[in-house]
Amino acid sequence: MKTLVGVMGPGDEAREEDLKNAFEVGRLIAQAGWVLLSGGRDAGVMDAVSKGAKVGGGLTIGVIPTDNKEAISPAVDVAILTGMGSARNNINVLSSDAVIACGMGAGTASEVALALKAKKKVVLLGTGKECEEFFKKLEADKVFVANTPQQAVATVKEILAKQE
Amino acid sequence: MKTLVGVMGPGDEAREEDLKNAFEVGRLIAQAGWVLLSGGRDAGVMDAVSKGAKVGGGLTIGVIPTDNKEAISPAVDVAILTGMGSARNNINVLSSDAVIACGMGAGTASEVALALKAKKKVVLLGTGKECEEFFKKLEADKVFVANTPQQAVATVKEILAKQE
Amino acid sequence: MKTLVGVMGPGDEAREEDLKNAFEVGRLIAQAGWVLLSGGRDAGVMDAVSKGAKVGGGLTIGVIPTDNKEAISPAVDVAILTGMGSARNNINVLSSDAVIACGMGAGTASEVALALKAKKKVVLLGTGKECEEFFKKLEADKVFVANTPQQAVATVKEILAKQE
Amino acid sequence: MKTLVGVMGPGDEAREEDLKNAFEVGRLIAQAGWVLLSGGRDAGVMDAVSKGAKVGGGLTIGVIPTDNKEAISPAVDVAILTGMGSARNNINVLSSDAVIACGMGAGTASEVALALKAKKKVVLLGTGKECEEFFKKLEADKVFVANTPQQAVATVKEILAKQE
Repeated sequence: MKTLVGVMGPGDEAREEDLKNAFEVGRLIAQAGWVLLSGGRDAGVMDAVSKGAKVGGGLTIGVIPTDNKEAISPAVDVAILTGMGSARNNINVLSSDAVIACGMGAGTASEVALALKAKKKVVLLGTGKECEEFFKKLEADKVFVANTPQQAVATVKEILAKQE
Repeated sequence: MKTLVGVMGPGDEAREEDLKNAFEVGRLIAQAGWVLLSGGRDAGVMDAVSKGAKVGGGLTIGVIPTDNKEAISPAVDVAILTGMGSARNNINVLSSDAVIACGMGAGTASEVALALKAKKKVVLLGTGKECEEFFKKLEADKVFVANTPQQAVATVKEILAKQE
Repeated sequence: MKTLVGVMGPGDEAREEDLKNAFEVGRLIAQAGWVLLSGGRDAGVMDAVSKGAKVGGGLTIGVIPTDNKEAISPAVDVAILTGMGSARNNINVLSSDAVIACGMGAGTASEVALALKAKKKVVLLGTGKECEEFFKKLEADKVFVANTPQQAVATVKEILAKQE
Repeated sequence: MKTLVGVMGPGDEAREEDLKNAFEVGRLIAQAGWVLLSGGRDAGVMDAVSKGAKVGGGLTIGVIPTDNKEAISPAVDVAILTGMGSARNNINVLSSDAVIACGMGAGTASEVALALKAKKKVVLLGTGKECEEFFKKLEADKVFVANTPQQAVATVKEILAKQE
């Protein structure tokens, strides 16, 4: 079975910095030989990370909140249509062997929290000081902070090595 | 249709203070004539708030993560068995006209975040400084902080009045 | 905890006969002291059975496929907003102590099948010969056929008595 | 985006004939260049069809009912862990461009019904006369009957050609 790394982040509210980070994270994930899992929509971090992964030659899975193909990133290879809105956020994190949050918003916060609830490790990249402090307080040993895409992916590598 | 107020909080990790607050919040919700919605398990805040609501003479709904009746609070009148684990957290907040978080943990954090994602108002009670600062930064106009059960329920009253 | 009886049936494609049956089934469920659970929309069997239950003085729960209150039967007391489309059909049957299918359609067929998968007993009322033969073949000891609302509710009574 | 063909069928109750058909259907799906989607468990049709698709050189997606990797077919490349039991059946059919039911049982029946509800075309292979008659009556223009794996896949080819 392939290793899946989930990258979560804001859609329409993503900042320029989040998009750049996401693209690079996606590229590095693909180069590491992992499958990328994202929310799959054609917006923000979901779109950028999928595009990066395709440039890196990887396979991209999108777990879509709607029940149709109208707003899916063109860089998604395999679309899982859930038709269940934000409840699909739990599927995103359950299916991921490790999770990177790239930027922050309410949906992304729910994914970090659901990941921690499911005992998954989460790497925070560009999510802000308040976010880091909150989740670090909640689950200190499962939350990691990275400052660059390279650091984020290196941290995932360490997490996966320990899980094997 | 009846007004539903959702109260979310930790299960087995709830502190004594959370349980006391939850019981009182439940009692006040029932006295206000609202239906209580909780996660419905026989543990922590879910159990305490349901018991309070029954003492207050109210109706209690439990939205259960499992598909069976083995671990439901005896104070739940109507059990909705979802069999979908933490994905049911999204149902909890979608179904609530307003949400109170009573104490904090990973599951509760996901519910606050999912509520904000769904444009719901959330009242934080005993969730800690880091939590307040994070969610306030995320959605300043949808997050309210209360210091007592009375304040929490009074804030819900104001929220509901504006929504009508 | 209250006993929930689920009544499933077509929405917009319900026949006149299904609506009449559903209304009467709802009334009898309420009179038996059970809580009615339905799909909750303001259409077809969901609407008719909820109206019957209110006339009978009962409590009505609607498990709604959407995430908003726009198309809910006015006879639903407590609306559980799932935002997960037809995946909510599984919640309908998991939450019901027994299920009545009143009329038939693709959604209703999925609910009968999901109920059987979850080891629930199902009473078929006005679902047609092909439907009866198929589900009887699938799970002979869990499928019951009724010819009138009275028979359907009497069968539920027997089912519940054996489950206690 | 890749074309996904979903193959649904019984797990532990699958007949020898269903397993043979499933393996061959999986092989032909892979050879047609489509991605296989199944329920992903290490049992029955889910397992056999995934193994066939790997022999055919294809990519296999498993949409798993549980939240862990304990009982997944070794022939599944990408596991989507839903943790939502039979409610994941709706994801299976929403994500599939066409659906083949290979053998019959309560879970499979729910998938055929949910597929029809979502306006998907379904090919029945070895599902029995009663099943064919029931679903044909329900949605005549969306239900196709095949007698061999070759026929089933040829029918999917026609369905997909019309959808383009």
